[in-house]
Amino acid sequence: MTGRIVILTGGVGGAKLVKGCCEAFPPDTVTAIVNTADDFVHLGLPVSPDIDTLVYTLSGKANPELGWGRAGESWNFMEALRSLGGPGWFQLGDGDLAMHVLRALALAAGAPLSAFTAGVCESWEIGATVLPMSDSPVRTMLDTDAGELEFQDYFVGRRAAPVVSAIRFAGAADARPGPGVIEAITAADTRAVLIAPSNPFLSVDPVLSVPGIREALCATKAPVVAVSPLVGGDAVKGPTAKLMRELGMTVDAVAVAGHYAGLIDAMLIDAGDPQADFAVTVARADTLMHTQADRVRVAQAAVALADSLR
Amino acid sequence: MTGRIVILTGGVGGAKLVKGCCEAFPPDTVTAIVNTADDFVHLGLPVSPDIDTLVYTLSGKANPELGWGRAGESWNFMEALRSLGGPGWFQLGDGDLAMHVLRALALAAGAPLSAFTAGVCESWEIGATVLPMSDSPVRTMLDTDAGELEFQDYFVGRRAAPVVSAIRFAGAADARPGPGVIEAITAADTRAVLIAPSNPFLSVDPVLSVPGIREALCATKAPVVAVSPLVGGDAVKGPTAKLMRELGMTVDAVAVAGHYAGLIDAMLIDAGDPQADFAVTVARADTLMHTQADRVRVAQAAVALADSLR
Repeated sequence: MTGRIVILTGGVGGAKLVKGCCEAFPPDTVTAIVNTADDFVHLGLPVSPDIDTLVYTLSGKANPELGWGRAGESWNFMEALRSLGGPGWFQLGDGDLAMHVLRALALAAGAPLSAFTAGVCESWEIGATVLPMSDSPVRTMLDTDAGELEFQDYFVGRRAAPVVSAIRFAGAADARPGPGVIEAITAADTRAVLIAPSNPFLSVDPVLSVPGIREALCATKAPVVAVSPLVGGDAVKGPTAKLMRELGMTVDAVAVAGHYAGLIDAMLIDAGDPQADFAVTVARADTLMHTQADRVRVAQAAVALADSLR
Repeated sequence: MTGRIVILTGGVGGAKLVKGCCEAFPPDTVTAIVNTADDFVHLGLPVSPDIDTLVYTLSGKANPELGWGRAGESWNFMEALRSLGGPGWFQLGDGDLAMHVLRALALAAGAPLSAFTAGVCESWEIGATVLPMSDSPVRTMLDTDAGELEFQDYFVGRRAAPVVSAIRFAGAADARPGPGVIEAITAADTRAVLIAPSNPFLSVDPVLSVPGIREALCATKAPVVAVSPLVGGDAVKGPTAKLMRELGMTVDAVAVAGHYAGLIDAMLIDAGDPQADFAVTVARADTLMHTQADRVRVAQAAVALADSLR
């Protein structure tokens, strides 16, 4: 089979799946629809953490140790910034800064985020298509035991320690899907729509909050397959399991599938997850992604699961 | 004698004299009034080359090889910028960027350049007072055989190669002296006003173009002493001699003194300069400044010349 593979994705875990898809299938058939609700303006510069993680990963520039930023990064900007009394809580690497400075220039000149992102992909010869979920600002806001917090304050500033009671996506009601987003999901030649193993609440839900995207997932003739973010019954990285507990959910793949009920046709779960009853078709694979072979295996298993539903 | 030492200054040569004054005299008696007509906005960031060279020099951070920017600088921002198709003609070091990003934030929040500069001096414990010549934008424009050029396009972009026929300071007529500038020049306790061995046309003339500064130099009771930028009859660095020829002047200290006629009471010239008739009092010293001892020697000689006029 051939056809377009579309992935709804957030940060590092999702970027690995997109990279796996680009290694397992022709990159020009791969389209990523990326969460932008983590975006914020820091030091006057617009930062798009999930887009940046994705383009760094796809272009081979990602820092594998940190899970964010660029490999071989230097930190002289941060050191000088601190010496001048500037804020040190959010790390901007020296090379990474070029992205934010150029994005600031582009947005100030009236270019949409999608156009800037397409330019980055062209400069770095990224064969895949990278689409922001929206060019409109959508911002994740969390109700916590430390009060209402913006995403980066919660996630970076407080290391996701506060207990979360509710999550909102400010601006979502007025946001429009980015150019190409709806078309990619609903195109007749789309082979599979994958939901990456990103945080369902902080990375995937914001994408689904943009009016039209949820409807497109329901309308598409392509199979929709989620890859569970849980491995052996726990989150690989980040606050997914902690958030599920705080939101009153059981920490298992059944709960994740339930969260996506009505949207997905099937779910790929980890081979080490316990047996359980799922309301959708389930396939299993070793879903931990450390190496290139891991990424290719998970991408192939997710697309094979989609193909099996046709 | 004691009292304040005020220096009108531009880039690297002037910064060395100010540094020498801070080494020869108590730094809290030293006030630099700095050219800001080289300032420009690059990549959306406001860059103040002469202020930056001065604060890097005074805080021991200057790059002695380059003559601009920071010592031990890294260049990952520029490399990433170029890979994204950004402009590479103006070099911004990774540590240097912190200055420009914080200045952009401060100016966008409504702070004047003088307040931001004072904050830098406080952060880096620079004992001297560093005053921008003006908080108003003044921009050096050059008429050349390559057309009208902005300063950085002429100086950095074209390496000062075009032949200059005239120099203007756009905005000067409407500019006001920065806070403290006139007071520093005219204060009763001011011991000497020095004109640094900076480029008379591109570094000192813009300072003199701000309404009120020339008048303050005429009004002050303190002796005004220029340090000639020529050493052994030629410019140490930069386009001073080339500019003098293009503007139809003889390249010698007499011509520099003539350029400052009516403003200065005396001039310190290089020991190696030829004998000549000067309209003002002249003293000689080895004015080349490579080492700390050189800087201290020139500072002491210039202030001694001023003191001798009382």
